[in-house]
Amino acid sequence: MRKGKISPAVIRRLPRYYRHLDGLFSAGVVRISSSALAGNMGLTASQIRQDLSCFGEFGQQGYGYNVERLRGEIADILGMNRHHTVVILGAGNLGKALLENFPFQQYGFRLEAAFDIDPALVGTKLGGVRIYHPDDMAEFLRGHPADLGALTVPGRIAVPTAKRLAAFGVKGIWNFTNVELPEAELAGVRVENIHFADSLLTLNYFISEDQS
Amino acid sequence: MRKGKISPAVIRRLPRYYRHLDGLFSAGVVRISSSALAGNMGLTASQIRQDLSCFGEFGQQGYGYNVERLRGEIADILGMNRHHTVVILGAGNLGKALLENFPFQQYGFRLEAAFDIDPALVGTKLGGVRIYHPDDMAEFLRGHPADLGALTVPGRIAVPTAKRLAAFGVKGIWNFTNVELPEAELAGVRVENIHFADSLLTLNYFISEDQS
Repeated sequence: MRKGKISPAVIRRLPRYYRHLDGLFSAGVVRISSSALAGNMGLTASQIRQDLSCFGEFGQQGYGYNVERLRGEIADILGMNRHHTVVILGAGNLGKALLENFPFQQYGFRLEAAFDIDPALVGTKLGGVRIYHPDDMAEFLRGHPADLGALTVPGRIAVPTAKRLAAFGVKGIWNFTNVELPEAELAGVRVENIHFADSLLTLNYFISEDQS
Repeated sequence: MRKGKISPAVIRRLPRYYRHLDGLFSAGVVRISSSALAGNMGLTASQIRQDLSCFGEFGQQGYGYNVERLRGEIADILGMNRHHTVVILGAGNLGKALLENFPFQQYGFRLEAAFDIDPALVGTKLGGVRIYHPDDMAEFLRGHPADLGALTVPGRIAVPTAKRLAAFGVKGIWNFTNVELPEAELAGVRVENIHFADSLLTLNYFISEDQS
């Protein structure tokens, strides 16, 4: 159903479409017009039609979108049916938040293990997932190759840890450290950053503007 | 030094400029050419010149940028010198990560308090910040108005908690829940979202594309 290459801007909107369609599906909605979906999402109907035109003929004049089919197609585009494996590097507060609270399985991922140097954590489980010492990473990953690594280590070891993950064949790094990873040295590994500071400062810009 | 309105796309790049310039300043760099700064950041020199032209004449032909002045100007634009106050709603794993690990002060914020219903947490301190029961929020905020609220509560109470914050006069909500807040019902409060799922699914799209 897919037509050609999808622009990065559309890709970044897809997870949001997925979340909305998943909510509609769970609520028993079978179909929705582009204008109703747009109203839900604070977009215009024409933007939605343009974004979703990449996925073939899900929208029909006078019918709208079949919620379940469109949700399935977007899940497929986002690779949710590939059941990629994930390991978490760093089981501090943020690593714990991912282990205990983030619904990896619901989004099609298999969370395999976490790694931390804290002797109090090594050998225990958090959110049902075992914590290993980083020294055992090579052996673990040989038996259980990981597609994705979530990086929640302290900033000072972010780069060497990312390089280790790349050397072990991970395909993507989900980077929560405040450090920019040297992508050129990461052997083609994709990096997606969650920079808390950038987000907070952007918010602060807007509230400061409102006050001035 | 500021010239007119800055586009949202430039705003979103400013924190990254700030981080780079702060790193350069800490390393003792006094000035930098736009091409060297561009090389550092994986951008083109002309993009940098265009972005930074909003801030007046910091760049000079044959001189480049004065690192300290440009860093200061960007900090100012981002409202870092306003010392906005922050409260955290929810001191679970993610709230703890913010309390104990996020350098609010370094970015010009004053972290005032956190709120959680857990009796084991109420009355204690995390990262030097006291945890209160949400029932005491009205009284606390009357004495210590908060500019910003970080929302790290469970998704099912995200919307009512955001509405309470709005009613208490908060100007911005930093939303970590996986829930989209109804901005129209939040009385002009600015919302900035960190959607973990959207970020992970975007990364997953790119690694899935690489494999196919």
